[in-house]
Amino acid sequence: MTKKSSPKKKASSAKASVKEKPVILITNDDGVTAPGIKNLVEAVRDLGKIVVVAPDKPQSGMGHAITIGQPLRLHKIDPLFDDVETWSCTGTPVDCVKLAVDKVLHRKPDLCLSGINHGANHSINVIYSGTMSAAVEAAIESIPSAGFSLLDYSIDADFTGAKKYVRLITEKMLRTKLEKHTVLNVNIPAVAPELLKGFKICKQAYAKYVEDFIERDDPHGRHYYWLTGEFVNFDKAKDTDVWALNNNYVSIVPVQFDLTNYVLKAKLEKSWK
Amino acid sequence: MTKKSSPKKKASSAKASVKEKPVILITNDDGVTAPGIKNLVEAVRDLGKIVVVAPDKPQSGMGHAITIGQPLRLHKIDPLFDDVETWSCTGTPVDCVKLAVDKVLHRKPDLCLSGINHGANHSINVIYSGTMSAAVEAAIESIPSAGFSLLDYSIDADFTGAKKYVRLITEKMLRTKLEKHTVLNVNIPAVAPELLKGFKICKQAYAKYVEDFIERDDPHGRHYYWLTGEFVNFDKAKDTDVWALNNNYVSIVPVQFDLTNYVLKAKLEKSWK
Repeated sequence: MTKKSSPKKKASSAKASVKEKPVILITNDDGVTAPGIKNLVEAVRDLGKIVVVAPDKPQSGMGHAITIGQPLRLHKIDPLFDDVETWSCTGTPVDCVKLAVDKVLHRKPDLCLSGINHGANHSINVIYSGTMSAAVEAAIESIPSAGFSLLDYSIDADFTGAKKYVRLITEKMLRTKLEKHTVLNVNIPAVAPELLKGFKICKQAYAKYVEDFIERDDPHGRHYYWLTGEFVNFDKAKDTDVWALNNNYVSIVPVQFDLTNYVLKAKLEKSWK
Repeated sequence: MTKKSSPKKKASSAKASVKEKPVILITNDDGVTAPGIKNLVEAVRDLGKIVVVAPDKPQSGMGHAITIGQPLRLHKIDPLFDDVETWSCTGTPVDCVKLAVDKVLHRKPDLCLSGINHGANHSINVIYSGTMSAAVEAAIESIPSAGFSLLDYSIDADFTGAKKYVRLITEKMLRTKLEKHTVLNVNIPAVAPELLKGFKICKQAYAKYVEDFIERDDPHGRHYYWLTGEFVNFDKAKDTDVWALNNNYVSIVPVQFDLTNYVLKAKLEKSWK
């Protein structure tokens, strides 16, 4: 981004940022060719200067993985839209954020958006999700961020309702003076747009996949396992993301990366003297 | 494990568990052949029935990644010690925990220990760490757990002091009635054992690696990036893990997997009406 401010005026001041378009970094975990990321860009395209840096292949379930033992590559590819610089990266979603800030933008963007994920990232999924880990990585680096997920895994999912809320929430984020470590986990029910009732600020439900493994033998007679599972909600509270989604609300869970369990900390300080 | 209880008596009752040896699952992220896991087993070997299920290759920085697009394999290998069933797994540390519970133990172990990691997992590293993600996965599955890390990356690190504290903390965990979702992130300073001053219950410091990428061209003239960085502590508080470690204390941070930022939740509930 070209600095338009004179040497006397700081480019990062509130006044300057009103004049300049905010820089919005967009990434995902389904890969740069997934329909979800194109829909995300389309929804917010005129709200800022958009730069896309996303994985070159699906990276679902990569969590907060980073690439340590391998080199990373970045390729500038055909833009998703004419005015949107687009990069493909060989690494994980978290690698994409790190490389985007250091080697593509050479500055912190004003906002980072991740998604729109094909499939749910509510409840415990926030921990396994590459989409959300990219958003969390941005927040660690002091960039307010949000991850968006539509509860529809299919490649031809209808993003109409999702796009409406992505835009609404992005506008709210740009208007609100957000703390620099802000991360929002936004999930959108897979229902017709007219059935969406609004959004709810929620807590993360204690709901998870109860694992199972499909067991098979390969053509060489060697045994293998394939992860599968059934989703179970153990949380009956009504302020959870799962409750909101089941009731046709878009769920917004503010997320943090300080994982300290302060209640247990206080207990152990007394009992483990 | 053979149930010794009669049909009238529940095997899971407190009395029964006093008589039976607790089952302790051990995993890591440096791989089943790393010295750290052998030292962990050695430290707690007589405290329970130990079963090892660990990755077949280094998995550092894998965070909470799970394997979705590939089959997983388990191989029973030469035991680390005569009485310790040992399995090698092709997946991530989190996959190891899932497979161990479902396909090796066919029950929840009483405790899960992960490590001893070669290198620090304090502060923000908890999020990138495969060692800690394995422990968190256990806690999600209602198995109290701890991850242990020694602040020495070398393959020939001296684990003497680490082993002493691993044993002490494991004994404490077995004696304490722990909530089923308990996770402890334990880091041990890389100093001579006699210099260790004890342990401190801490919070996660806001300290992180400030990224940098080494840029090079490969033999074919194609550009690549390699992640590196400098560790910076932004947190001056004295109850953090980084402070404790810098002052020769073993740090214990209780960790949680509910990532909800409740402070921001309350704010947004008011301001985003």
